[in-house]
Amino acid sequence: MSSGYGNRIRTTIFGQSHSGAIGVTIDGLPAGFRIDMEELQEFLNRRAPGRSKYTTSRKEADKPEFLCGLVGDTTCGAPLTAIIRNTNTRSGDYSNIRDIPRPGHADYTAHIKYGGYEDVSGGGHFSGRLTAPLCIAGGIYKQILQTKGIVIEAGILEIGGNRSDPFSEIEKVREAGDSVGGIIQCRIRGMKPGIGEPMFEGLENKIAQAVFAVPAVKGIEFGAGFGVAEMRGSENNDEFFYDTDGTVKTKTNNHGGILGGISSGMDIIFRVAFKPTPSIAKEQNSISYSEGRNAKLVITGRHDPCIVPRAVPCIEAAAAAAIVDMIEL
Amino acid sequence: MSSGYGNRIRTTIFGQSHSGAIGVTIDGLPAGFRIDMEELQEFLNRRAPGRSKYTTSRKEADKPEFLCGLVGDTTCGAPLTAIIRNTNTRSGDYSNIRDIPRPGHADYTAHIKYGGYEDVSGGGHFSGRLTAPLCIAGGIYKQILQTKGIVIEAGILEIGGNRSDPFSEIEKVREAGDSVGGIIQCRIRGMKPGIGEPMFEGLENKIAQAVFAVPAVKGIEFGAGFGVAEMRGSENNDEFFYDTDGTVKTKTNNHGGILGGISSGMDIIFRVAFKPTPSIAKEQNSISYSEGRNAKLVITGRHDPCIVPRAVPCIEAAAAAAIVDMIEL
Amino acid sequence: MSSGYGNRIRTTIFGQSHSGAIGVTIDGLPAGFRIDMEELQEFLNRRAPGRSKYTTSRKEADKPEFLCGLVGDTTCGAPLTAIIRNTNTRSGDYSNIRDIPRPGHADYTAHIKYGGYEDVSGGGHFSGRLTAPLCIAGGIYKQILQTKGIVIEAGILEIGGNRSDPFSEIEKVREAGDSVGGIIQCRIRGMKPGIGEPMFEGLENKIAQAVFAVPAVKGIEFGAGFGVAEMRGSENNDEFFYDTDGTVKTKTNNHGGILGGISSGMDIIFRVAFKPTPSIAKEQNSISYSEGRNAKLVITGRHDPCIVPRAVPCIEAAAAAAIVDMIEL
Amino acid sequence: MSSGYGNRIRTTIFGQSHSGAIGVTIDGLPAGFRIDMEELQEFLNRRAPGRSKYTTSRKEADKPEFLCGLVGDTTCGAPLTAIIRNTNTRSGDYSNIRDIPRPGHADYTAHIKYGGYEDVSGGGHFSGRLTAPLCIAGGIYKQILQTKGIVIEAGILEIGGNRSDPFSEIEKVREAGDSVGGIIQCRIRGMKPGIGEPMFEGLENKIAQAVFAVPAVKGIEFGAGFGVAEMRGSENNDEFFYDTDGTVKTKTNNHGGILGGISSGMDIIFRVAFKPTPSIAKEQNSISYSEGRNAKLVITGRHDPCIVPRAVPCIEAAAAAAIVDMIEL
Repeated sequence: MSSGYGNRIRTTIFGQSHSGAIGVTIDGLPAGFRIDMEELQEFLNRRAPGRSKYTTSRKEADKPEFLCGLVGDTTCGAPLTAIIRNTNTRSGDYSNIRDIPRPGHADYTAHIKYGGYEDVSGGGHFSGRLTAPLCIAGGIYKQILQTKGIVIEAGILEIGGNRSDPFSEIEKVREAGDSVGGIIQCRIRGMKPGIGEPMFEGLENKIAQAVFAVPAVKGIEFGAGFGVAEMRGSENNDEFFYDTDGTVKTKTNNHGGILGGISSGMDIIFRVAFKPTPSIAKEQNSISYSEGRNAKLVITGRHDPCIVPRAVPCIEAAAAAAIVDMIEL
Repeated sequence: MSSGYGNRIRTTIFGQSHSGAIGVTIDGLPAGFRIDMEELQEFLNRRAPGRSKYTTSRKEADKPEFLCGLVGDTTCGAPLTAIIRNTNTRSGDYSNIRDIPRPGHADYTAHIKYGGYEDVSGGGHFSGRLTAPLCIAGGIYKQILQTKGIVIEAGILEIGGNRSDPFSEIEKVREAGDSVGGIIQCRIRGMKPGIGEPMFEGLENKIAQAVFAVPAVKGIEFGAGFGVAEMRGSENNDEFFYDTDGTVKTKTNNHGGILGGISSGMDIIFRVAFKPTPSIAKEQNSISYSEGRNAKLVITGRHDPCIVPRAVPCIEAAAAAAIVDMIEL
Repeated sequence: MSSGYGNRIRTTIFGQSHSGAIGVTIDGLPAGFRIDMEELQEFLNRRAPGRSKYTTSRKEADKPEFLCGLVGDTTCGAPLTAIIRNTNTRSGDYSNIRDIPRPGHADYTAHIKYGGYEDVSGGGHFSGRLTAPLCIAGGIYKQILQTKGIVIEAGILEIGGNRSDPFSEIEKVREAGDSVGGIIQCRIRGMKPGIGEPMFEGLENKIAQAVFAVPAVKGIEFGAGFGVAEMRGSENNDEFFYDTDGTVKTKTNNHGGILGGISSGMDIIFRVAFKPTPSIAKEQNSISYSEGRNAKLVITGRHDPCIVPRAVPCIEAAAAAAIVDMIEL
Repeated sequence: MSSGYGNRIRTTIFGQSHSGAIGVTIDGLPAGFRIDMEELQEFLNRRAPGRSKYTTSRKEADKPEFLCGLVGDTTCGAPLTAIIRNTNTRSGDYSNIRDIPRPGHADYTAHIKYGGYEDVSGGGHFSGRLTAPLCIAGGIYKQILQTKGIVIEAGILEIGGNRSDPFSEIEKVREAGDSVGGIIQCRIRGMKPGIGEPMFEGLENKIAQAVFAVPAVKGIEFGAGFGVAEMRGSENNDEFFYDTDGTVKTKTNNHGGILGGISSGMDIIFRVAFKPTPSIAKEQNSISYSEGRNAKLVITGRHDPCIVPRAVPCIEAAAAAAIVDMIEL
């Protein structure tokens, strides 16, 4: 039950990199919501490969086919399922990683967990390609949330530690046959105060659970984040005041819009750390299952030297899945 | 349904700072496990107040009373409920915060969420005191995990940015009537490879969801954490090798023991950022609900100038709740 | 995770017949609901033993102690826990059933499941006594539902096949040292149409799941129930019409207020079959674990010759747990 | 979240009668299980229409297409999704029921719940056609359970009250343009004792929740079922004995293999009551939404005069979904 998320609106993602199709089933959507298909496609395009020189050249249009859940473009209350056909279902390129797990990938851990029955091709269910159906769901959720005045926007904060010119870092590593990580910041505007729960179902808990579903994420922080560890209470405390329009605000937003798991009405702000793409051109050390000894691995094919640009809509999608599960629709 | 966690072993925490009792119900414990009550009490003592000069002087022994779920000290398969009586149930000290929410606390967000019906006294259900029943559960889980060879150990990494002499920072802020944050690092040893799920129920997702239940946590990172954002793939990738005993290991552990949500067999390592205790002696700006205008607040009573030392076992407990929910018992 | 129920409002029941206490934790109650404690006690009294000559003479007042979740008598949004102390915690009377499982009871199945670690005394967690905390929860839910115009009322339909004078059957079996089963009918009035879900979370699914938690239930049927199996469509179909007040009704109610899992606005009607109390005075055949051979068992102590009268509020409570989990509060 | 079921192995069913496709996603299947596709197809054929003179003539082969979750025919641990294309996606025939709800169907309740946005064609998500994906899942589960020695077999017990010659009843009502209900009995052999949970997650609770997902079910009873209501304890109690092979059995099986929610090792036996197909040729009274007054309805098209024969594999599938969710795989 790993690939489902949510209590009110449940997102279940299925598919492998090279299976017949990948897709998503959403159970619990309110009836009567008209999906703006053009806007959804634009959202999906932000994640799709082959859009710029910074991404892999595999060119599959992430064009969802809606199997059910709609009458026309409008939700009918029944579960919605959308799929994307995998046009490239060959798995010939993966013969070496069937025996030699790629460092930094889930090849080895999946191999142990599934006893060798895992789908190796393209990383199987662990492939970054599975973020496409996450974005189908998230794109719909974003549209629904927008009708509630809630807007989710993520962006690149830094790549390889470079904030002023992050894309230059990608150029550098590409030339070196290497890859690089980065940080995405996400802001959720329009959250009314009082949303979320204490303890295990708070906004931080829920967003974190959703965001770690995006491959390569290794950390998440809210508001001032790890910075709070160096702060004093007198600095970190965000003082309340009545704004001129009578709403309650805080002067600063170190709490990132969340106190006790519950929204304060201030923007929710969080940052997510992405590791460098594990697939690199350089030869790496690994092991051979069949030979029971250490082995060298060279990964062929073309891979994103940095996953961060394409991950931006994925973070928005994950956040949307969390928020849509917590509000009254 | 905010205060419950887990699918196989469900932890439900209840109580308010000054209600008759606080406690925990655990559903799904295996039958026949003998709890070492002395060891459990020692674990609880690590969290209890009044143990050192660095913690608040409220001296309530966190001595659990087991209402059910045991025959003698051994689990019988039925849900286990343990409570701690609140000896101090007065709520007289909280008349001011009933009207003026404390900056950095959940007073305001709870007030909006519960429409003024929240229990204000001592922070109610949002009080750090609720980590006592979390530790009852976590202490039991730690004992169960130990029989599986899994050991969870957390410690203070830094306070106020000071790693070499973290406690000195607490002294400083205490004198200043202020408070300070810090970072706890947790290590989980003995995890066999292959535990965890892809996507939404991975180890990172589950641990993060549990850990954000501990008050004051604002960030979590695994392995190299936010550091990965500045790394290259060739640095960050942890190469596999066969150890002399035939087990598969990685030369480095930037992945923190988790790849694709699944354990690799390496230690799971994560760090958690804590904000400074919001209750400080200094006068702060806030609002008055009743007067509908900005107001000054002075928080009386004694409070931990730094929550980090007492939070160490809480992080172990939260991690244990996550792990125990993911393994075959 | 057997003893919890519900997605929005979660009811977790804990305790064994002779443990320190039995009780219930409710997570998800709306804040600001004032419990009428007198009405609740009256509801609990309907279930309590020793009230009439038809019930066992064990006289423990089912007087709940509320540990948390309230400010005064009003819910504060935090989980509510209420317990009932077991004044009789002796387990001496159960030495024989520790070795010889009682026919019709869960002694044997629990013994296998829990590997001999189960709490045998009084049936442990399987005791009918555990319906007391179910009724605490259900009594509160009934009060909440009443504010929504929803009224749940159950009654004895028949005992031992006798509808006209059901209690006479109890007299008969009591004299014979035997016991007898019966049927309870429950009616839920005031359900607006459109509540419930298709497939697995329909009203029938949810009510059935809750009702089978009451010990001794062996069947449930809705509307015309098993009678539909002998009917023709032209008889069974409930034709729609506009009532004089403009509401849509059906001329008959064979569907029991539920179509496709969703309420139609007609009364929800269901019936529940109870088996005879398994504890009877007559000597019975069973097995001895220790001797590994067949053995005779005589059950001592006093037992209800018919559980049906005391089960009436339990069915209301189970139904209330189901309904309160499905409506917007 | 209505169309999903299960905690360990989650079955999510999607689709409408005339949407592009219907299907199922299964999350949590063990890796390495080889599906016998021929056996699965034979199981699906038992449910498919057009197989005999007793069923509707709509002839769509229920041939599943597996989109993911397999490598070859073997599960790989990732979620499995299988779909069946709807070749008949016209919705022209349903213009009248868009305005006039069919008695006995979910048309009206869905109309209220989904505010008129429901998919009316062919009953939408409430169509009996949705039992096809249930049977895909259930067929797979049955194969998995068979490897554990667990066999689930259902059969027609009676139709229209006729046990000796049930099919003759269908002939009668067909000629009369009417329909008829019936009872299916299901037996689960090979269940080891000790499976299931007390209270809300017992075998009866879980099976009942699953079985009520099959359209037209109005009642379920286990073992002696409603018959227990007329029995005495001395009759109903199933006495334990050691069989010659040393296993514990009961002389009778009034408990239907379940005591306290937990399997006893005896066959699990339950019966399910089905109402007559609501779609009948006879003119019926209903209402017109648009005209706000009572109206006559004539349902055209061909419909099963009795759903019971085709429902037999559906009950097996529902039971299999419940059992597979409760055992260690």
